[in-house]
Amino acid sequence: MIRVVVTGGTFDKEYNELTGALFFKDTHVPEMLRLGRSRVGVRVDTLMMMDSLDMTDADRTRIVQACGAAPESRIVVTHGTDTMVQTARAVATSGDGGVAAKTIVLTGAMVPYAFGSSDGLFNLGSALSFVQVLPPGVYVAMNGRVFPWDEVEKDRAAGIFVGRTPPVEPSPED
Amino acid sequence: MIRVVVTGGTFDKEYNELTGALFFKDTHVPEMLRLGRSRVGVRVDTLMMMDSLDMTDADRTRIVQACGAAPESRIVVTHGTDTMVQTARAVATSGDGGVAAKTIVLTGAMVPYAFGSSDGLFNLGSALSFVQVLPPGVYVAMNGRVFPWDEVEKDRAAGIFVGRTPPVEPSPED
Amino acid sequence: MIRVVVTGGTFDKEYNELTGALFFKDTHVPEMLRLGRSRVGVRVDTLMMMDSLDMTDADRTRIVQACGAAPESRIVVTHGTDTMVQTARAVATSGDGGVAAKTIVLTGAMVPYAFGSSDGLFNLGSALSFVQVLPPGVYVAMNGRVFPWDEVEKDRAAGIFVGRTPPVEPSPED
Amino acid sequence: MIRVVVTGGTFDKEYNELTGALFFKDTHVPEMLRLGRSRVGVRVDTLMMMDSLDMTDADRTRIVQACGAAPESRIVVTHGTDTMVQTARAVATSGDGGVAAKTIVLTGAMVPYAFGSSDGLFNLGSALSFVQVLPPGVYVAMNGRVFPWDEVEKDRAAGIFVGRTPPVEPSPED
Repeated sequence: MIRVVVTGGTFDKEYNELTGALFFKDTHVPEMLRLGRSRVGVRVDTLMMMDSLDMTDADRTRIVQACGAAPESRIVVTHGTDTMVQTARAVATSGDGGVAAKTIVLTGAMVPYAFGSSDGLFNLGSALSFVQVLPPGVYVAMNGRVFPWDEVEKDRAAGIFVGRTPPVEPSPED
Repeated sequence: MIRVVVTGGTFDKEYNELTGALFFKDTHVPEMLRLGRSRVGVRVDTLMMMDSLDMTDADRTRIVQACGAAPESRIVVTHGTDTMVQTARAVATSGDGGVAAKTIVLTGAMVPYAFGSSDGLFNLGSALSFVQVLPPGVYVAMNGRVFPWDEVEKDRAAGIFVGRTPPVEPSPED
Repeated sequence: MIRVVVTGGTFDKEYNELTGALFFKDTHVPEMLRLGRSRVGVRVDTLMMMDSLDMTDADRTRIVQACGAAPESRIVVTHGTDTMVQTARAVATSGDGGVAAKTIVLTGAMVPYAFGSSDGLFNLGSALSFVQVLPPGVYVAMNGRVFPWDEVEKDRAAGIFVGRTPPVEPSPED
Repeated sequence: MIRVVVTGGTFDKEYNELTGALFFKDTHVPEMLRLGRSRVGVRVDTLMMMDSLDMTDADRTRIVQACGAAPESRIVVTHGTDTMVQTARAVATSGDGGVAAKTIVLTGAMVPYAFGSSDGLFNLGSALSFVQVLPPGVYVAMNGRVFPWDEVEKDRAAGIFVGRTPPVEPSPED
């Protein structure tokens, strides 16, 4: 069984035809899983529905706690792309005992699933697959690739996630 | 670098608006990878475009040889679902030396990508992810899950792939 | 109020993912009207769901009778394209008194609405508009155009409807 | 031959996946006509690409002039819905001699064509049909219906166009 923690992001944005603005209503994850004819056992938990640029430390703490408290040891977190790496770091470095032994994969989309030309279905298929086979750790799955949380950053100009060298840990002698 | 060997299947079928029949033209894999904003290095090789029910032993031999000869050690094969398991077995039991050390994942779709409601994009995201992290072997990736070639069968009535107990190998003493 | 008489045709075909065949289930007309945010008062009547190549004289008689018996004076008939002109002629020449004073517009689609790249929504918007403003008569609305029933034919090679000179009526002296 | 004057509006908005904002690039009208398998002779003229809430009197004057100067006597104007009625009035009351004898139909969409669930294709099919058969005048075609320019208003709360009684003209004695 896999837990899907929904936090919103572009993935789940919709177009309000009365105002012309983008907004959140319900998550599209269950519909996407049906479209993918998924037979993976999942439990979808809509934790919040927000733009990741608006997330506060308190929001991230809620995500950490949701991951830590989940009985499942494999978790997909759907998340806005702008601060996905920041949340991945928050989860990985939280010190929450419930998180340590779990495989946690964050994913999102560059274009809302409800629009044409969305990468959302591809990304969900990808994240759901990586989470089943990767060892415990916190990862970002985007662009068909997967990265450890401390070896990835978003290239905002290109709209893609790219690898980066993890920061060198200061040695105890320093 | 990952090799994608295209063989056709429902995945790539199109609707001929003059005759009302389904047919094959070009593969949609490159378009699907663009839609998924994939940044995985791939080389797409259209080996054949056919309904998997029409595949002969000679066709399967060509697939085995394409997998064996590919310089890439990780290969996705797009394939019709009806005989996907049969081709997976042909690849796995071919004795082709070039196949042995490779991770080979077969996938397909229940509904053509060109139609609404296709599972194709989800499946491609899934197969492309599994192939990057699984150890050498031959697998089927469908319904968000992955199965070793000898532990899967298609449930035709339900239109899904399900696990099955692998056949017991006869012991040398038998 | 406008009556929509549904008879099937490519318009309403669906893909059976278990068999790979095209088939009919329910009409998509109500869903299409919702998508078009239509506020035209309509009553949808699913008379039959069939490929127009399979229509018999008895089927056409049922269509004539449905048009004749409808209390609405403006009627859209959704129909397969292959024999749409033949049915238009059957309606126009039926001698059914109920048909004479009505505006009847036949339309269909080259690609099923449920598939990508369908012309169905465009055609429905077109037929529904023509039927509101044309004088009594029987018409075919396809390719954004409208034709009187006896001045149109389907160009099967091109997949479009084109005008044709109406047959010269034999004069009484002949 | 029909002139299509493109002015932008929701119809043609796109999603910028780098910024998450909606913006204008090229018009989708030619692609939509291809999708509709339209065989109506049209000439598409992209006059401006803007949100109709941002239109100034000068913009409306340009639209009036484009309609007046067009050699075609039947014109479809694609336009944002928020001030579509205002522009229809500007065209109808412009006193431009080139406009007087023409049939001019304004249309738009509540949801961008590029998104799922757009009414754009339905509306284009509808406007293109009405413009071919209506007598000279200025009209708004939305929701499958057509209204003379002075008998329509947008119900913003419901997101639809509805009829309204035309204002009583003050008599010369008043």
